[in-house]
Amino acid sequence: MLEFDLLKENEPAGEDRSRLGRITTDHGIIETPIFMPVGTVGSVKGVSKEDLDHCGAQIILGNTYHLYLRPGCDVIEPMGGLHKFISWDKPMLTDSGGFQFFSLAKLAKFSDEGVNFQSHIDGSRHFFSPERAVEIQMTLGSDIMMSLDWCMGHPATEAQAMEALKKTTAWAKRGYDFWKSRGGANNLFGIVQGGMYKEFRSLSAQQITDIDFPGFAIGGLSVGEPTEIMYEMADHTLPLLPQNKPRYIMGVGTPENLVTLVGMGCDMFDCVMPSRNARNGKLFTSFGAINIPNAKFKTDERPIDDACGCYTCQNYSRAYLRHLNKTKELLSYRLNTIHNLYYYLDLMGKMRDAIKENQFLAFKKDFFSARQE
Amino acid sequence: MLEFDLLKENEPAGEDRSRLGRITTDHGIIETPIFMPVGTVGSVKGVSKEDLDHCGAQIILGNTYHLYLRPGCDVIEPMGGLHKFISWDKPMLTDSGGFQFFSLAKLAKFSDEGVNFQSHIDGSRHFFSPERAVEIQMTLGSDIMMSLDWCMGHPATEAQAMEALKKTTAWAKRGYDFWKSRGGANNLFGIVQGGMYKEFRSLSAQQITDIDFPGFAIGGLSVGEPTEIMYEMADHTLPLLPQNKPRYIMGVGTPENLVTLVGMGCDMFDCVMPSRNARNGKLFTSFGAINIPNAKFKTDERPIDDACGCYTCQNYSRAYLRHLNKTKELLSYRLNTIHNLYYYLDLMGKMRDAIKENQFLAFKKDFFSARQE
Repeated sequence: MLEFDLLKENEPAGEDRSRLGRITTDHGIIETPIFMPVGTVGSVKGVSKEDLDHCGAQIILGNTYHLYLRPGCDVIEPMGGLHKFISWDKPMLTDSGGFQFFSLAKLAKFSDEGVNFQSHIDGSRHFFSPERAVEIQMTLGSDIMMSLDWCMGHPATEAQAMEALKKTTAWAKRGYDFWKSRGGANNLFGIVQGGMYKEFRSLSAQQITDIDFPGFAIGGLSVGEPTEIMYEMADHTLPLLPQNKPRYIMGVGTPENLVTLVGMGCDMFDCVMPSRNARNGKLFTSFGAINIPNAKFKTDERPIDDACGCYTCQNYSRAYLRHLNKTKELLSYRLNTIHNLYYYLDLMGKMRDAIKENQFLAFKKDFFSARQE
Repeated sequence: MLEFDLLKENEPAGEDRSRLGRITTDHGIIETPIFMPVGTVGSVKGVSKEDLDHCGAQIILGNTYHLYLRPGCDVIEPMGGLHKFISWDKPMLTDSGGFQFFSLAKLAKFSDEGVNFQSHIDGSRHFFSPERAVEIQMTLGSDIMMSLDWCMGHPATEAQAMEALKKTTAWAKRGYDFWKSRGGANNLFGIVQGGMYKEFRSLSAQQITDIDFPGFAIGGLSVGEPTEIMYEMADHTLPLLPQNKPRYIMGVGTPENLVTLVGMGCDMFDCVMPSRNARNGKLFTSFGAINIPNAKFKTDERPIDDACGCYTCQNYSRAYLRHLNKTKELLSYRLNTIHNLYYYLDLMGKMRDAIKENQFLAFKKDFFSARQE
């Protein structure tokens, strides 16, 4: 079961709304604010569990849609659940599939009952009701499960956003009731939708927080809208979520996004960006991102970032990483992913330290000014 | 500089001709018989240097043809040589490019002067003389360099095999003289060719061993001929090589090949098989090879091989490895490669122990009978 201890909250209504917390789950403790690396089908692409430990990962995310299709519950259940199957003994969060129905599944058909969708792998048809989405996550054994939601893209009309909002609320209630009826083990979070309409976000937040979920997420952001609108929605919605429960913004974002949103009071993040960009050779540093394939790194003996303590920076030059990227060597994906995940998780750790020491605004200022050099 | 200590040789003319040796290089000691993982462009595909340590790698191989094209000497030279560039501080052997001219380079044209070839990457034209092949390897800083040779496929006519043999001898002399004229640092090995003709193998061995190379290789095997012919050529040629210098059969082979050829007195091997097969899901075990994608492993909780001490077998089930293979996860390549390389290097270690304890024939018998179960 989840416990959330809000260790510190700076100025709930002021310029610095950053929070320091601690989530306790059956698989261990998560210090917030935290970033969760994405392990889509039961593996964070390119890295091992020891790499994740080195990077400072406290919790990883699995995608229910992907795991349901491959390897499927008929494998994960007899193997003793997802933790055992993938040999990961720390906390794990799974999403509900809602985002994949929006981004990936072909011909997803939404009804009051749930979502009828076609596998992106073999075209087979499947159905997720809000109950089934929770049931699958219970089979996976996730420490934190997510309610089935309807994630709307951008732009969406008021009518579309309202329809998605209504279904998300109805499904949240059904998922919650199902979860409780099955004993309420582990944790189920509710998701606020409402598109890019503040009044809809308010309404959704009110309806979703009326349900006694152990934590709350803001979904439907980072779906194509300008960053300023994403910030506006987050800034509007975060204060509407209960103070004493974790707040999670799904699928966000860049390092700059994380620093900004932590300043607005967000506790949890996930995003494929650090791992996906790593595979493409885009590496994050304390002075901004660099593209390692760039010819200027051809004989550059320096590490990616002198200020970085990761395995990659301690062992390899930009020149070698460029070579591995150009030759598409498997080691390239691993070394770059280690660096980017380390960067993200180290950034979260630095933010936690800054909050602890009442230095978050100064940290934020330094963070952004180092990028403008 | 290379020293070779022949610590033990069982029965030079008998049924068990296995040898135990120790090669000392500037970058450390190699215990023979040994298998050398292949790090084509400066990375053993899928694994890190720590993984290689775990697998028991004492020396790795780099391909001069590939490294010359990418990243090129204009990168490796200013970066301080290949060891420094790739962060590998143990011994390294590089081939001469001869095998790639046979297998990969388009429109390679052989003349007395050397090989004019077209890059398989961008079609650009390049020229390797025997001197240039050595010079490039000196720039790489290889502990063991190989003479430029002409590797003939199978089948080849007598005329073709003889032409390749003659050029290989002429180039060996020129490469050796060049190496000596440049100070003779590190080590240069000669390569015996001669196709699948015993009398040519004898002639080539005589000509090549007339040159005072620190070690000798048998090239042109495993180029499409039946295994029995490969064994016949190795069995014929190995005794023609000097007893007090290392003997290396290039590009071979299966675990069964290694055990058989160690029994014939071979000291060194390299092959892409363990790493390439790993990426395809073919895994070596003490009871033969298994194909991890096979449906029968779907919920198999056992490790690949109960008898294996590798990281993969200590941490992951066949079911998870099957899942990673089916979903083409990057972790699949790494975990499988660690297992296969560990298997190969552990096999070499077991053979060294058996030779030391005068048990090689018993070991060989057990090895093959375990595969017939």
